[in-house]
Parts: sequence; C-alpha cells; structure tokens
Amino acid sequence: MDSCFFSDHISHHVSATDRGQLYSKNISMTKRSNFKRLLVLCWLVAVLALVGTGQTPKPTETRSARSHPGLVLTKDGVKQIRSNLGKVPLFDASLADIKAEVDSEIRLGIVIPIPKDFSGGFTHERHKRNYLMLEKAGVLYQILDDKKYGVYVRDMLLAYARLYPTLPLHPQTRSYSRGKLFWQTLNDANWLVSASQAYDCVYEFISPADRVVIEKDLFRPFADFLSIGSPQFFNRVHNHSTWGNVAVGMIALVMDDAELLDRALNGLKEDGLTAGMKDNDGGLIKKEGQKTGFLANVDEPFSPDGYYNEGPYYQRYAMYPFLVFAQSLQNKRPDLKIFEHKNGILLKAVNALLNLTKSDGEFFALNDSQKGMSIYSRELVSAVNIAYLFGRRDPALLSIARKQGRVQLDNSGMAVALGIKSGLEKPFEKRSIDLSDGPDGKQGGVAVIRNKKNDDELALVLKYTSHGSSHGHYDKLSFSYYNNGEEVLQDYGLSRFVNIEQKGGGNYLKENTTWAKQTIAHNTIVQNETSHFGGDFDTGSKYHSDRYLFDVSDPKVQIISAIENNAYPGTRFQRTMAMIEEDSFEKPFLLDIIQLDSKTPNQYDLPFYYFGQIKSANFKYESAKALEPLGKANGYQHLWKEGNAIFGTENAKISWLNKGSYYTLTSATQAGDEAMFVRLGANDPEFNLRRDPGIIFRKKNVQKATFVSVLETHGSYNPVTEASRNSYSSIDSLKIVFEDEHYIAVEMKNKAGVTSLFVLSTKDDRPTQRHNIEISGRPYNWAGPYYRPALK
Amino acid sequence: MDSCFFSDHISHHVSATDRGQLYSKNISMTKRSNFKRLLVLCWLVAVLALVGTGQTPKPTETRSARSHPGLVLTKDGVKQIRSNLGKVPLFDASLADIKAEVDSEIRLGIVIPIPKDFSGGFTHERHKRNYLMLEKAGVLYQILDDKKYGVYVRDMLLAYARLYPTLPLHPQTRSYSRGKLFWQTLNDANWLVSASQAYDCVYEFISPADRVVIEKDLFRPFADFLSIGSPQFFNRVHNHSTWGNVAVGMIALVMDDAELLDRALNGLKEDGLTAGMKDNDGGLIKKEGQKTGFLANVDEPFSPDGYYNEGPYYQRYAMYPFLVFAQSLQNKRPDLKIFEHKNGILLKAVNALLNLTKSDGEFFALNDSQKGMSIYSRELVSAVNIAYLFGRRDPALLSIARKQGRVQLDNSGMAVALGIKSGLEKPFEKRSIDLSDGPDGKQGGVAVIRNKKNDDELALVLKYTSHGSSHGHYDKLSFSYYNNGEEVLQDYGLSRFVNIEQKGGGNYLKENTTWAKQTIAHNTIVQNETSHFGGDFDTGSKYHSDRYLFDVSDPKVQIISAIENNAYPGTRFQRTMAMIEEDSFEKPFLLDIIQLDSKTPNQYDLPFYYFGQIKSANFKYESAKALEPLGKANGYQHLWKEGNAIFGTENAKISWLNKGSYYTLTSATQAGDEAMFVRLGANDPEFNLRRDPGIIFRKKNVQKATFVSVLETHGSYNPVTEASRNSYSSIDSLKIVFEDEHYIAVEMKNKAGVTSLFVLSTKDDRPTQRHNIEISGRPYNWAGPYYRPALK
Repeated sequence: MDSCFFSDHISHHVSATDRGQLYSKNISMTKRSNFKRLLVLCWLVAVLALVGTGQTPKPTETRSARSHPGLVLTKDGVKQIRSNLGKVPLFDASLADIKAEVDSEIRLGIVIPIPKDFSGGFTHERHKRNYLMLEKAGVLYQILDDKKYGVYVRDMLLAYARLYPTLPLHPQTRSYSRGKLFWQTLNDANWLVSASQAYDCVYEFISPADRVVIEKDLFRPFADFLSIGSPQFFNRVHNHSTWGNVAVGMIALVMDDAELLDRALNGLKEDGLTAGMKDNDGGLIKKEGQKTGFLANVDEPFSPDGYYNEGPYYQRYAMYPFLVFAQSLQNKRPDLKIFEHKNGILLKAVNALLNLTKSDGEFFALNDSQKGMSIYSRELVSAVNIAYLFGRRDPALLSIARKQGRVQLDNSGMAVALGIKSGLEKPFEKRSIDLSDGPDGKQGGVAVIRNKKNDDELALVLKYTSHGSSHGHYDKLSFSYYNNGEEVLQDYGLSRFVNIEQKGGGNYLKENTTWAKQTIAHNTIVQNETSHFGGDFDTGSKYHSDRYLFDVSDPKVQIISAIENNAYPGTRFQRTMAMIEEDSFEKPFLLDIIQLDSKTPNQYDLPFYYFGQIKSANFKYESAKALEPLGKANGYQHLWKEGNAIFGTENAKISWLNKGSYYTLTSATQAGDEAMFVRLGANDPEFNLRRDPGIIFRKKNVQKATFVSVLETHGSYNPVTEASRNSYSSIDSLKIVFEDEHYIAVEMKNKAGVTSLFVLSTKDDRPTQRHNIEISGRPYNWAGPYYRPALK
Repeated sequence: MDSCFFSDHISHHVSATDRGQLYSKNISMTKRSNFKRLLVLCWLVAVLALVGTGQTPKPTETRSARSHPGLVLTKDGVKQIRSNLGKVPLFDASLADIKAEVDSEIRLGIVIPIPKDFSGGFTHERHKRNYLMLEKAGVLYQILDDKKYGVYVRDMLLAYARLYPTLPLHPQTRSYSRGKLFWQTLNDANWLVSASQAYDCVYEFISPADRVVIEKDLFRPFADFLSIGSPQFFNRVHNHSTWGNVAVGMIALVMDDAELLDRALNGLKEDGLTAGMKDNDGGLIKKEGQKTGFLANVDEPFSPDGYYNEGPYYQRYAMYPFLVFAQSLQNKRPDLKIFEHKNGILLKAVNALLNLTKSDGEFFALNDSQKGMSIYSRELVSAVNIAYLFGRRDPALLSIARKQGRVQLDNSGMAVALGIKSGLEKPFEKRSIDLSDGPDGKQGGVAVIRNKKNDDELALVLKYTSHGSSHGHYDKLSFSYYNNGEEVLQDYGLSRFVNIEQKGGGNYLKENTTWAKQTIAHNTIVQNETSHFGGDFDTGSKYHSDRYLFDVSDPKVQIISAIENNAYPGTRFQRTMAMIEEDSFEKPFLLDIIQLDSKTPNQYDLPFYYFGQIKSANFKYESAKALEPLGKANGYQHLWKEGNAIFGTENAKISWLNKGSYYTLTSATQAGDEAMFVRLGANDPEFNLRRDPGIIFRKKNVQKATFVSVLETHGSYNPVTEASRNSYSSIDSLKIVFEDEHYIAVEMKNKAGVTSLFVLSTKDDRPTQRHNIEISGRPYNWAGPYYRPALK
C-alpha cells in the first residue's frame, strides 16, 4: 500500500493542498497516463484488501435504508407523484422534458474526462452536465420506476469512484481553492449537491458492495476534500462556502453521518486559517471570531427581510443550495425546524428575490451580476416550488411557476403543479419595497419604488446597502431605473462572461476591478475622481449607508432618501429620489436630489448611464475631434470623452430615444457646472467592455453642492407606423428655490404653466413633526418629512 | 377680385412656386395673422360670386352618382361586407379597432391647424392624422351605415375647403417641392389619396351644394396644385410622383374627370422642366425623353420580377398608392386591365416585396431604408389584401395576413378574412431568389439566398442592382447577412429619423450623404478611400453590376456571383458568395470570394459591420490609446480607429457573440495585409449616427487582389442557464490553392481534419461546359461553373 500514492485519500494524513503540490512536483504531464493505470491498480488492491479484511468504514445501509429516498424525494412523496402521473399537466410536461433530455444523454453514453479546462471548456462542461444528468436520472428512476435510470446513475457513480482517487488538484491554478473535477472547489461542491440527490434516489437499487465502493472512494473523500481539505473554501461566510456546506450536508444526510452533518451545519472547529486572508477575487476569507457552517451562512448574509448581501444575482445562485438543503433537512431532520430558523428567513428570501426583478423577471444588476439572469433560471424554479410547499402555499407563487413553465420533479413541484391545475393561482404583485441589509437589518438596504399602470411599470432601485462581501461594488447611493423590461439608466453589472472560455476562462476579467466595481461605473457621486472608500475592500466592508426616509404611502409621491457619511471621509451626502405622478405628465417622473457637504472643496461628478440615441440637447457643447480617455484611474481610464459643455444658469435638458420610448433629463445647473458626454471602451484592448454611453455632470471646487434633476419618460416611436408621439419634455423650468441646513425646496414649472413645489425636511423625518418655513416670501407649514402643496 | 391675392388658386395663372415666393417676399411673419383673415374674406367673396353667377365648373353628381362608392369600396362590395358582419373574426376585429380609433377622434373634434411644422411637429402630425381619419371614417360610414361618420367626413372636408384656398406654400422651405398642408408636396399627395376615398364613401351623403364647394375649393385646386402647380414633383419617375399621380387619379375617378385621369395616367404633356434638374436629396427630376405619369411609374422602376429600383423600404411606401389606385381603376375602369399591365407586374411586386424580408418580416435595409419597417405596416396589409383578391387568391398570402392580424376594411380585406376563416391558409415559403433590376430586368439585381432548417434561417442578400434613383447607395456588390430576425452583418440603412422632428425635422440628415450612402458604410470593396463612381449620382445612375452566376439547385451549395466593371474605372471586381452546408459544421457557413483586377495599383478596403461583442481574435493588434478618425472624407471621417493589425500568412480569425449566437470570420490573409477595428461616431456632433462596430481588411498598393473569407454561425449562449455551447470555429485553415484568369480554388480544412475544395470557373458559366485543371499536382475535371469534390 505504501507504493500507492493516493492512500491518503482514505486516511487523510496529508492535506489536499499539499497532495496537489506534491503530485505536480513529482509527476510530469507526459507520464500521467501510465501512472493512472498504476493508480487504478493500487486502488483495486486497496479496495479488495480493505473489503476483504473488514477494515472499511461501516456501510450505512442498515442504518438508513428505511429512508431512501428521503432527501428531496421521499418514499411517500414518490407514491403521491406516481399516483398523479398523467393528470397534472405542468408536472407531466416537466417530466417529459427531463425524460427526453436524460434519454438522449443515456444514448450518448457515460463520458468522464480527466479534468483539464476552465469553465466553458470541454471537461468542465462535461462534468457539469454529468452532475445535472445524475440528479435528473435519479429522479426519473424513482418516478418512472425504470431500472434503466438506476443503472445509469450507478454506473456513472462507480466510474467517478474509479476516477476520483486518482485525481490531483485541478491543473488550472487560478482559484484560491482549486477543485479536483473543476478548476474551483465551488464547482466540485455543485457536483456533490446533485450527486448526493442521485445517490439517495438509487441507493436501494445499488448493491451494498457497490455502495461501499462509492461511499469510500468517492463520497467520503469528496466531502472531506471539500471541508477539511479546503478550509479556505468551506469555513467562511460566502456563497462558495454555502455550496460547500450544503454539499457536505447533503451527502451526510444520505449516508446518515452525524459528524459530517455537524461539520456542514456548524463548520470546521479548526481551520488553520489566518484572519484577513483573501480569495482570488479579493474577497475576505476569514474574519476574526467568524461563525461558520451552513447556519452561519443563513444567519449572516441574509437580512431579516431576506435580502442577501451579495445582491440578487448571487442570491439566486445561493438560493438553490440553501433551499434544497433546507428541504432535505426538513425531510430527514424535521426536529431542526430549519424553515422556522431566524423567523423563517429562507422563505422570506425567496420573496425578496422575486421582488428584486424587472417586470420581465430579470434581476436588477446590483453588485457583481451578469445581466439576463432571471426568475426563469433552474434555481428559481426550485426556490419557488420549495417556498410554496414548505411555506404557506402562497397562491401568488403559482403565477410565477406558471410563467416559469416547469416544476422540479419532486413533491414541491407536484404541489405547485397541482395548485395550478386546481386554479389556485393569484397574481404576484410587486409593490414598492424597502429591504434592509445586514444580519440584524441595520446595515442600510435597497429600496425598490414601482409605479404600475395597467401593464406599464416604471421601477427605481436605490442601493444604500453594506458593501456586499467580495461581490460588492463601490457605489453608495447609486440607482438604476427601468421602464418595464428595459433599462433606462443602467447599473453596468459585472465584467465577466460566465462560462465563456475565450473570455479569461469564463472568470472575472480585470475590467471587473478596473471598471465595473469602481464608483464612476455607477449612477452616483464620485468625489475627486476616486472611488468610494478609495476602492479599498476592507474599508468599504466596515460601513454602510443609512436610510433617512422611505415613504410610499401616497402612490403618487413615493420617496426614498438615504445618507452616506463614510464613502469620502469628511464628506456627507444625501440622496432623495421621488417617483411622482402629476397631471399633464404622461407618465410618472423621477425627481433626484443629491446634497453634498464636505469639510474641503472638491470636484463632484454625477454620471447617468442611459441607453439609446440622443435626440436633442438644449445646450451648446464641444464635440471631440479625437477621443481621449477621461482620466487615468479608478474607472475614468475606460471612458472616452465624446463631448463637453459648460453651463450657464439655464436648465440643462437632454432627450434620448430608446426602444420606442422617449426620455428627457432636466437638470437645475448652476453657472460653471460642466457636463461630459462619455462612452465606455477606452483602454480596453480585449473588447471586454460594452460601448455604452453616459453623461456626467460635474461641479468643481465646491464644499457644498446640490444636484437636482428630473427624468421624464414620455411618448413613443414606432418604426412600423413611423409615428412619433409626445417626444418633447413637459418641463418648462426646474429650480432650487430654497436650501439651508434643514430644508430643500425644488420648484418645477410645466409647459402647461402649472407650478409644483417639493419641500423636504432633510434632518427631521418624524411623521408628525410640524415645519414652518418661508420660501420666496411665502410661508409654508406642514407636518411630516416632506411637503408637496397643491399645484398652482 | 383683383384685390384678392389668392384668386389664382382658381384660375392657375401663377405657378404655385411663384406664388409661394411672392408670398414670403411680401408678407412678414408677424403680419400673417391679419392677412389670413383678409384671405378668408376674399375667399368667401370669391366663392359667393362664382356660385352666384354660375361660373363654377359643372358639378359632377349627375354623371357619377350611380357609382359611389366605387373606388375602393363598391356598392356590391358594401352589401357583401354588411351581410358578413359579425361572422368573420379577422374582419370584425379590424373593424372594431378602427371604429374605436375613429370614435375617439370624433369625440376630440375636428382640428385643422394652419400648416407650420416639419414632420414630427404638431401641424404635420395633425393633418396626417386627419387624412387617416377621413379615410377610415368614410369606410365606417359605408360599412356601419351610421350618419355620424358621414357628418364627420363632410364637416372635415368643408373645413379643409375653407382653409385650402387661403394657403400659401408651406412656410418650411427645405423641399424641392413644397406642399401647402405639409412641408413637401409628397405629404399633400398622401392626404389626397386618403381624402379621395373618404369623399367617394360619403359622396351621396353630402348635399350637391356642399359637393360643389368641396370640389371647387378643395379637390380641383388640390389636384391642379399637385400636378400643374408642381411639375417637378408630378412629372418624374419616383415614389414621389407615384403618389402625386395616384392622388390626382383617385380624385379624378371620384369626380369622373377624364382629363384629370389622363393627366394622372400619362403625366403632364408640358412641364417646363429642364433635363438634369435635381431634388433636395440629389435625386434626378428630369431625364431627357422621360415618360411620366402613373403608367410610366409602373413601367420603369419595376423590374419584370417585381423589384422596385429604390429598394424594399420605398417599394413598401409606394406599393400602397400603386395598388390602391390599381384597385380603384379595376373597379371604375376595368377596361384598362391594370392588373394585367406588364405581365401582372403589380401583383408580382407584392410577392417580391414579401421575399425581401428577414424571417421576422422586417425588410432588408437596401439603399435608403429605416430599419424596423416590416410586413406589419399599413401599406403591406393593404398590398397583401389587394394582391389576394385581384390576384389568384394565393393561399400563402393568407398566412401573411394572419400574422398581420388585421385586414383593410373593403372587399379585399373581407376576401382575406373569409379565406382565413375557411382555413384556406398555406405557409408563405421564402426560398432563395434572384430578383432582376431595371425595366427590362437587364440592370443587375438582388439575390437572396436562404437556408432554413426547422425554424432557423440564415439569409444572405447580395446587391448588384442599378443605382436606385435618388434613394440609391454607392455599394456595388455589397451584402448583408441575417440569422433569423437578427442582423449578423448589417447594411447601415439610412441616416434619418423619419417623423422625429428633433432630428432635422424628421428629414434626411447630412450624415445620410456623408456616411450612409458612401461605399465604406457597406460590406463591399472601397478602392483608395473613395466611393464607387466617385460618389457621383449621375455617373452611378448610368451603370449597374452584372450577374455572373446564380445557382441554388443544390440546397447544400447555393451560389451567387456578380461582376462590377464601372464603380472604379479601370478596375473590375467579381464577388462570389456561397452558402454551404457541410458535415461537422453545426450550421451553414458563408464563403465570400472577391477578386479584383485593376490597371493601376490601388489600396482596397473590405469592411464587415458586425454586431455584438468580440470574444477572441487569433492575431496581435494594436489598441488605440486615443481615437482618431480613420480618414478625412467619403465616410472615413465618421469612423474611429479602435485598433489595427498587420497580418502574417496565417488565417486571421475573429469571433464575436451577438444575441445568443456565436460568429467566426476566418480570412485567408497574405503577409502585409492589414485590418482595422473601427467604430462609427467620429465627426458626429449631433449624435446622428449609431456607434456600430466594424472590422476593415485592407490590401495596399496592389493591382490584383483576392479577399477570401468564411463566416461561421455557431453555438449559443444563454444568460439564464449560463451555458456556452460550441463557441469555437470549426475551421482549421482556409487557403487559396489556385488562381488564374479563369479559375479560383479555395481549400478549407476543418477541425475534424476533413478537407474541402471549392473551385469556380470565373469566366465561363455555361452549365455543361467541361473544365480540366491541375491543383497542387492533382487533376480536377468537372462540368459547369463550379466544382466541389467529395470531402476527403
């Protein structure tokens, strides 16, 4: 046995990381093939020896056979499903799709390549497809009671059990936590989450002898590698470790292994990690005194409202392991009452996530997020199904499920399909909502303000959260704005092409750091061309913005106001945004007020990243004859300067057309204010960035500054009828008519000659507090944080 | 009467143009209001005087009362429609839509503003809406037999009859032919085409006395102004004059005026125009010996295949007057057999037009065309309905009508709706097609090559037409390429925002001349940075390209090849494009071969205007630190140079991703060849141009040159599953292995190791001619213009 290099897989005497290094030192690439044969031989000898001598860990079948399947599917559940087959259209359709997909893969045969590629590459995509097929085939075996699927899962697991002990660390070295099947442990954990379910489904089909092999050579070492072997991955609070914890927990439940389950729920007692360690994306690995394990990963990143601190894109990614493990725990360990944990946070999280979407179901692009991800993803199908069954069977979830058009093939999916069949569905109404951030809900939040008329919805997202862990961006008080499914003012999202191998192996590109995370990439204030917190992760992670006011009680005047004190030491800024309905405006407009107060004079930039084609500007500007980058660093190096203007005291007005709708931004500028037309793409030799446009308003050398603007959504253009409707702004003038330490008042005159006033108490948000001020010689008095007198 | 400035409206002693100039010389803007009152007074006096003395032209009611309606609707037709109401879903739905629209306008009341604005402006849009409402209300009067609509039409016509005699030329002076209601006579003609139909519908409802007023003060002077008063508009071959001819012809038919009808059909005998005159878009007005009138406008711009020389966007615009007048002639003057004219050209034209669309129904953007225009336009609904009824009731047209979802409210629409109701519909299959250009079909053409598998279609459009009148672009042998509804390699289209007043009054922008019409704006050869024919309209109008070969007999190898001898004197170039299916390629690929032969050494540029984001390039390139325009003139001044490369002898390969599909362009470059990454937008201070990207291949200082490239369409990316599939090119190498005066052979090796050869006989296209050549020491012999040996 000493000659067999990988015996430590069983005994764990050497850490996985050490092994990988040792391996790559001793074995040259060209000799691996012969070496592999030798390894297989070693393995056979070892297994036979161990099996023969009874030295193997005790197989688990006697302890838990009674409960297979019992993880996601249950014995009773399968009975119920089988009895309903052919009677529940949505379930039957989903089953038919999955059967067709798996049958086609079975025809192709089992392919288990030696791991080599980054995501997007062949070996990565094949192993990924394998675990999806394992999971689906396992389910088909149970539901259809067809041996074919049992054989497929068994044979694939046995094949993996042959391969796994031979594997060194994955040859790609980019990750802070390299896997074995994949370039990062994260994907290995994805694999185990699916494979555990497959194993649970076919457990009774597989012979005890095969189970011994599969558990001993594959699942146990796999779970150990993910946890003990990868503490920097397993023992943190992050979506990565959530996957790791869940993978280990799922296989623990199948194998009925209490020690493994404890490891999954509560983390490693000892991890040997030093506080302050970072991963390859710059994310913190170890915080002093950090609790770890699944429960810590539920407790910490989720706010009491169910917002996940990394943002909806990663929340979607993490929801699947959170919920599938919760479902499994509920089935296997109902005593843990996991769905009641932290006031039912896991179910609240599903609701929060569904609210963080545009009207077409795509997630708002907060922090690192790839655009286009939506409620139609596999993870959300699962989340909605589980939330329905294990929650209070909210009929509004059924309308989401119907849009998704498929269910997962388990009891939760059957419950949903039956609910739809029974006509229980109600619309899922997304209303204005303010979601707190932080474990105790005290680290700022995200406000979503919506105005919906018939099928037309305008939505504002103002972000005033904590940093968002390693996926956070430096964009305090930034906002994005949506007209139905269209982005009006965008959040850029991430700079990455997930799973597209040609683009840096599908991983984060350097432009994610140099552009996407920088403050200038967002619709918020940049002081002196530097990002918030100097772009420093540790500093940024200490702070969050604070809510000042969220009041949507009047559907015609919905307000969010928040304050940031730490992004720039010595500078305080408050942003107040209101979505306002007013007669003589076709649609609600967005009022945006930013008040800055600093101890020192600064330059302030405020970008608006629009989409579409500019139709008119009411000011003179210079157009660049050659394009130069706008700056040298902090994201400015990526912007070309297409034009610039210096304003007088008139309002600056700029209109554009995008996807059939007109937009006009009117800004109350002061003499000497500047603006720049910019376009992304400078210093981007690899074409990693989109060539998106923006306009940046600039105030120079001021301590106090106030930016006030109104964005109108109006009119339409139809290229088939060629009819242009209501293409002009309805605003005649926009003025700050009062501002002091406690109040700001903005006056707007529309083209019908009607004047409106918006007064905000900026330091006292008490709902019944009375205020008295004089504006332009007229007294105003009212109660509450804001006042909007009748139009005159 | 001498004191009344506009008495010439009746007597036509002064030409309209003279009047307008006189008017604007004598009357200052601020005094117009009082002057208008005076005019109205004059007009009243004049009318009363004329009516009282019996000097009016004889009213027409006695002659043609029996045949109203008889133009588009007929008495029998109305009976048939009424008897089917409530029974034919598509017709009923269309009727309900139009009724709702007109009822809502009737509630708003009649508004007839004094003309003032460009298109997109209030007065323009109002008069436009008025004529659409007139037409629709007239139809509703007939179909619903409801007086309300008769009153509305009558009152509006009477109001126009009061206004019209008071109108000078439209105050906007941009057009070569200013209208009265609109800034260009063209729109006045649009007005009359609709108003004639409305008048026909309510003719019997209006009292004879009112008819006298309407004909005398409105329709007759209107028709005279469009024809005698605007010979530069009326007496040419152009879509403008088509509208003019039809407008005059329609009202002639309603008023039963043979002289007017002759004028419409055969043009003005005397027009006083000088040959060589141009309009404000640079289009030729008068050609020596030019026939004019409606029949000439049918004979000349349509090829025998039904292709209209200005391109599909304008063909769509012109189809409506062509067909609605043909329908009216068929109803009123069946003896003229208009639908049989020139071998049934008007019906063939509808078929040609339907074939010039992407799979989503949008027209290919040949010449001046605004993107997004489609078969869903009002004009195409009408065209399809008329072509169905007056053609051979082609059931394939019913499938188009069903997609359109509405019919026109006449007998043709009823026939279509009944056909659909009766289940007669068959699919409209768009196949590869080669449409000739020129009155005799001898001025080149447009080839559309399609490859459709299930619902997936790739389409190539190669343009080798004549110039295309004033809407033509300088782009001989240019092509565009489509993947279903998406543009893969685009034709830029026009630089204009039709009806968007903010953009130059909705008219052609100067960038249409400086960019959109220039050769560099297209996917074709530019020699020495100058456009074809030096960008000279007169020269370009003399020539056309020639077809060499169109062979789509083998669905796996579909070929078009054409030759251009005149774009650059002394230079001949031939472009051969083939859409080829080959095993081991997921989808058909596009082979593009351009062979140039010149008497002098030149620089040749070949641009490809792709959409989407570049994923990889297999060559080194320099990335610009600052962007400079690529050149000074001929469109080059509008391109920023983002990067450039100098190639070795390897293939240059560049891949991009657009809307979920990968594309790879592989080019057989030679040492010293260059390429430039470009982006549109330089010297565009008004943001009139889209910021679209392109790559330009360049060969310098060569007499003969050959560009060979292959475009693959492959794989997919889905942002919801984040799965990237088949994202790499399947081509290992691409080489020219033989080329002489008579043949070219291209060899391609794919990644599966399979080599394919494509041999073209470039000078002899006879189908049975035998050829013998030796390539790389191997003999090849075959019959016909091309050869593709079995793969090896």
